[in-house]
Amino acid sequence: MSERKFRYVGTRPVRHDGVDKVTGRAAYGADFSLPGMLHGAVLRSPHAHARIVSIDTRAAEKADGVHAVITGADLPALEPRWMPGAEGRVDVRDVAHNCLARERVLYHGHAVAAVAATSPERARAALQEIEVVYEPLDPVLDLDTALAPGGPVVHEDPAPLQDRGELPPNVAGRMEIRRGDVDAALARADVVIEREFTTPMVHQGYIEPHACLAQVGQDGRVTLWTSTQGPFICRTYCAAVLGLDVGELRVIPSEIGGGFGGKTTIYLEPLAIALSRRAGRPVKLVMTRQEVFLATGPTSGARVEMQLGAMRDGTLVAGRCRMYLEAGAFPGAPVFPAVAAAFACYRLDDVEIEGFDVLVNKPKVNAYRAPGAPISTFATESVIDELARELDIDPIDLRLRNAVREGDRAVYGPRYGPIGLVETLEAARSHPHYRAKLGVGQGRGVACGWWINAGMTSSAQVTVAPDGSAVVVTGNPDIGGSRVSLALMAAEELGIPVERVRPVVADTDSVGYTDGTGGSRVTFATGMAVIEAARDVVEQLRARAARIWDVELDDVRWEDGRAIASGGTEHAPLGLGELARQAAATGGPLIGRASLTAPMAGPGFATHICDLELDAETGRSRVVRYTAIQDAGKAVHPSYVEGQLQGGAAQGIGWALNEEYVYDAQGHLENDGFLDYRIPVASDLPMIDTVIVEVPNPIHPHGVRGVGEVPIVPPLAAVASAMSDVAGVRFTELPLSPPRVLHALEQRDARG
Amino acid sequence: MSERKFRYVGTRPVRHDGVDKVTGRAAYGADFSLPGMLHGAVLRSPHAHARIVSIDTRAAEKADGVHAVITGADLPALEPRWMPGAEGRVDVRDVAHNCLARERVLYHGHAVAAVAATSPERARAALQEIEVVYEPLDPVLDLDTALAPGGPVVHEDPAPLQDRGELPPNVAGRMEIRRGDVDAALARADVVIEREFTTPMVHQGYIEPHACLAQVGQDGRVTLWTSTQGPFICRTYCAAVLGLDVGELRVIPSEIGGGFGGKTTIYLEPLAIALSRRAGRPVKLVMTRQEVFLATGPTSGARVEMQLGAMRDGTLVAGRCRMYLEAGAFPGAPVFPAVAAAFACYRLDDVEIEGFDVLVNKPKVNAYRAPGAPISTFATESVIDELARELDIDPIDLRLRNAVREGDRAVYGPRYGPIGLVETLEAARSHPHYRAKLGVGQGRGVACGWWINAGMTSSAQVTVAPDGSAVVVTGNPDIGGSRVSLALMAAEELGIPVERVRPVVADTDSVGYTDGTGGSRVTFATGMAVIEAARDVVEQLRARAARIWDVELDDVRWEDGRAIASGGTEHAPLGLGELARQAAATGGPLIGRASLTAPMAGPGFATHICDLELDAETGRSRVVRYTAIQDAGKAVHPSYVEGQLQGGAAQGIGWALNEEYVYDAQGHLENDGFLDYRIPVASDLPMIDTVIVEVPNPIHPHGVRGVGEVPIVPPLAAVASAMSDVAGVRFTELPLSPPRVLHALEQRDARG
Repeated sequence: MSERKFRYVGTRPVRHDGVDKVTGRAAYGADFSLPGMLHGAVLRSPHAHARIVSIDTRAAEKADGVHAVITGADLPALEPRWMPGAEGRVDVRDVAHNCLARERVLYHGHAVAAVAATSPERARAALQEIEVVYEPLDPVLDLDTALAPGGPVVHEDPAPLQDRGELPPNVAGRMEIRRGDVDAALARADVVIEREFTTPMVHQGYIEPHACLAQVGQDGRVTLWTSTQGPFICRTYCAAVLGLDVGELRVIPSEIGGGFGGKTTIYLEPLAIALSRRAGRPVKLVMTRQEVFLATGPTSGARVEMQLGAMRDGTLVAGRCRMYLEAGAFPGAPVFPAVAAAFACYRLDDVEIEGFDVLVNKPKVNAYRAPGAPISTFATESVIDELARELDIDPIDLRLRNAVREGDRAVYGPRYGPIGLVETLEAARSHPHYRAKLGVGQGRGVACGWWINAGMTSSAQVTVAPDGSAVVVTGNPDIGGSRVSLALMAAEELGIPVERVRPVVADTDSVGYTDGTGGSRVTFATGMAVIEAARDVVEQLRARAARIWDVELDDVRWEDGRAIASGGTEHAPLGLGELARQAAATGGPLIGRASLTAPMAGPGFATHICDLELDAETGRSRVVRYTAIQDAGKAVHPSYVEGQLQGGAAQGIGWALNEEYVYDAQGHLENDGFLDYRIPVASDLPMIDTVIVEVPNPIHPHGVRGVGEVPIVPPLAAVASAMSDVAGVRFTELPLSPPRVLHALEQRDARG
Repeated sequence: MSERKFRYVGTRPVRHDGVDKVTGRAAYGADFSLPGMLHGAVLRSPHAHARIVSIDTRAAEKADGVHAVITGADLPALEPRWMPGAEGRVDVRDVAHNCLARERVLYHGHAVAAVAATSPERARAALQEIEVVYEPLDPVLDLDTALAPGGPVVHEDPAPLQDRGELPPNVAGRMEIRRGDVDAALARADVVIEREFTTPMVHQGYIEPHACLAQVGQDGRVTLWTSTQGPFICRTYCAAVLGLDVGELRVIPSEIGGGFGGKTTIYLEPLAIALSRRAGRPVKLVMTRQEVFLATGPTSGARVEMQLGAMRDGTLVAGRCRMYLEAGAFPGAPVFPAVAAAFACYRLDDVEIEGFDVLVNKPKVNAYRAPGAPISTFATESVIDELARELDIDPIDLRLRNAVREGDRAVYGPRYGPIGLVETLEAARSHPHYRAKLGVGQGRGVACGWWINAGMTSSAQVTVAPDGSAVVVTGNPDIGGSRVSLALMAAEELGIPVERVRPVVADTDSVGYTDGTGGSRVTFATGMAVIEAARDVVEQLRARAARIWDVELDDVRWEDGRAIASGGTEHAPLGLGELARQAAATGGPLIGRASLTAPMAGPGFATHICDLELDAETGRSRVVRYTAIQDAGKAVHPSYVEGQLQGGAAQGIGWALNEEYVYDAQGHLENDGFLDYRIPVASDLPMIDTVIVEVPNPIHPHGVRGVGEVPIVPPLAAVASAMSDVAGVRFTELPLSPPRVLHALEQRDARG
């Protein structure tokens, strides 16, 4: 398979949705409207933790233009029950209570009530008329408070479905991996480094706020337009929260202005549906940026305790890692992937990894690009960097000595198939960047990263029109260029130019069940379905040609978009266009379809190099050069693979240098806008250089593996190690904002 | 097959789109809007026939709020070329010139220019600013003028693609059927009746005017929302008229408020697209009722010369029929079906039928429910009625003596399979209506009718959701209840209640190619595709069960929605719901699909009985009792079959009694609204009684044949014969409006 010559896969055509998106024609979540539509607004808790004593909505219901007011009492009371989630499983009751609070509000910004009125202004005005009496409770705002015995408790009856054993009240879950004898191995080591790391709660920072439009008919049937990564997930969740069958909902995904995992759950959708049902009119709900920060899923703030031992030659001998991840107000921190990532890049026989899911009175975390992996990897790669310095070994050489290869057993279980970690390290070592001389006040850091890459369920339909063009229908909203990637794979199989393939994202009624756009799964798993559906069409095309020629099917082969009869020149080849034109007369339209549950895609690996310049007087730093190297299996559309590498690196750099949720002592979020919550903008970053390594993935017909998540994993450590390199002091606490860096430099100088 | 016991097919559930439609949630052609949308208006010719000397749009282009103005010069110049049409083939150039005139306007209301502006008022105001200089020409307004040598000519270069032979200038085509020796046979006959009949040009009278919304991106790609019977036909036509590939258009059908054949072509769509392209903004075009009457397809006015001979015992021996059908301003009167219908109900060895397609300066005719068949059938059935009187034979007995049966060769070619004409006649003879005593001033008429019923191309997808509900996706807009009919057939195959099946009408990108909703083909041909797709799902369900049980596929059968293992009770049956829940784990989603080109469905037959009361002083008549009896093959949803019978009868009664296009001497339509063009309303008609006969159609898996068109075929003659019965004078000219009837009564009395 690795020898297959591709004609379209691997090229860089203009994406089909490109013109739509740069000219404003593409319709995002807030761009849908219906006749008679009402506008909604959501009342949110001013407290981080409080009991709701009473809610009086009578005045609001009478306010100008108001057609409906709902509170938690208007949604069905649910028993705890597991539901498949974007990240493992979730308790349906938690999802419901996160959308609309019941007895208690659990974070600043938690939704308490919602209003639908004839204009957004009237809806917001009516919120002021809702009288809520709160009884404030002590909030749990950090891991120390959460874990301290006798402190405040987030849930009186926490996580009823989980097997909690002897866990403290605010710990919703725990997992561990143990192998070998870590104490004995560490005792044998020549060097042992032990450090504690902290990372802040950070937001995905997608540009498009959550937005949806719900229409409920008198028969109760729901049509929902929404900006989501997973229309089918959205359908499942909304049905569960509202006590409906999934068959009663039709979810139509809009274009999506970024998600990065943050649009794999629901927030506004059940409120819009409940308001529409009550008002008898369509209801649109659009979040403000402030609401996005207050009440949608960031990723966990965390503390990671890391111990790693090595021999003098650089061979790692043992690792121990304990991590505490903030879940926010409901269980569900990304503990498993953080635990799995900790030592996924290295051969280690003796390991202990332990992870805790810790409740705090902050917004419920949600998936964020390779959820959890950057957190534990920041610790591991920082310590590896320190080991390399201690042992005076080149940090890439040290990593190569220990890097996992095909056949090694991953710390988290399975044996690795063909993987590309070594290839990315070797590419890094031979890259001009790695040998370039650093300027004054500059430091360099290197880090690796791993991500598991999901498989899951996908469906696809490929049809051929009478003009010989094809349509690829899938159920995955296009975030990172998946339309053109899927079209390229179909073009490859059919043998027609990718411009003649139109990729379509359909709604939940029009396409077979398809899991969300996430887990780096779309080009891999939905791509497999598209290839299978295209091959189904090719089989039909061969059969049509066989029929026209009156020969056996086996005597017709498909090459470069043409049916060719074997043996001699009796029959001139029949192109797809000609066969398409004749389709109605030779057996009807040409339609291929596939549906499958794909295995895990197989992991992806990356190595990043970061050069950073520090202004020692102010503590301000700037990334001056950055190279991201990653194994893509096969880059279907290299530009969008490069874009993923650049985007992931940019987000990781922001996490490392600037981003963090800032709360006051009462748990009020103080930086709820992009002016105060600083994500990197174009002028903050150099052009990020990329190198794509291709170690074909044997379980995908075109060799593809996921690429979207790996690139956010290395930057935290790459940036922090570069900072340590220039500052001469190890940084273990993110973000490396100027005050914190300045403080460390002052301490260094004081130690003198 | 005829013994198959149905569980869901044949029941009468509430239609899935019923609540939407009675509560106003359903979105019709004019109900779509987009941000930045412009509103269009069309300038129409005040002349029936004129040369366009010049069009000056400069003032209009500068008018308030105007963003685009187009004339015929802005659409591509096309060479004549055949395209598949809803009714046979059409010349793409004719379609284009009918949408927007070029050098000449050919009928009153012919589109000349179009404007897009920020409001409908501004668009209409700008039309006044367009200066058109016309050079009026003599119009051709009736068949006599059209056929007279040396008279005015509609097209200087008529119908270049047709083999016209020696036809006069305004005759665009001719067809004939000849068998045996008619002159010899007529010479043998005991009785020969010879009469000439005329029928007026009438409109389909659908309630929803034409409406569409077009959006053209900067890349030229077109999205079109429109009220159409055929989204794929609309795509083909618009692409041809605008010089695009079909792949560049996506047509999204709205709900449709009636079509009856009249929405099988395009009018506004290419104008909206051209305006949107020029303005760079979405453009909506909605016709007024006046525009619908002026410029959309009525059916032909016609003259039919009929000669029929019979023996004294009632045996028909020969028939001769010559008919002239008005095509309107472009070729395409329904000559073939009118010719085929003339003697389709009877065994006749000696026949001559000849039909002419005649151009006149009136709107281009379009399909109208069994196009052409009511026209020739009016003549045939009126003469049969007269023969029965002449020979003193009961008119049903006379028809039974001559009725076609299985194995007979149809006059138009093929041998009949199992058909139900005799059954409908017998049902009529034994119906209480036929024996009921007539009141004073009342008359009774009987007539039969035939329709061919189309097959054509259809696609379908059936998916099963994790909750065990199913979705049926097709490409046919639902006019007469096809959603529920298709859902019933899927429910039957899957073995789940029809309420658990959701029928969806998808756009041209999301479903495989599907011909239009017309020709009575949807429940038949698209139904075949749905059944095939559902059976595809059942095969998958059996395979999943076999996998779960670890048995051979052949050992699993599907019964009543459950997989059952053969031989013993080792495995409890697995219901569709359980298999659906496990689908992701047993091989992925369940998706079935089918696409096929169906054969002709096989003809349908009907017998109608009409009682009519005449006020001899005013000439006003009223249908007081009406019974429509028809062979449906198998009535999938009897209520909607009954609805079709009632609707077709109502339209036929309107045609017989009141409807007609009234032109002045210059060719201006004088009755361009529902106040002056009188279609029957509920208070005009009795409840129409229906009897469904079921002679299963062997080529459809559930025995279905088309039902929608047959019921408009008999009423013209049934009503006219009832009028003759009470008035004692034969009526050969429709409509039987009070002045015409009064005039006939006066002539009768004058003859004394």
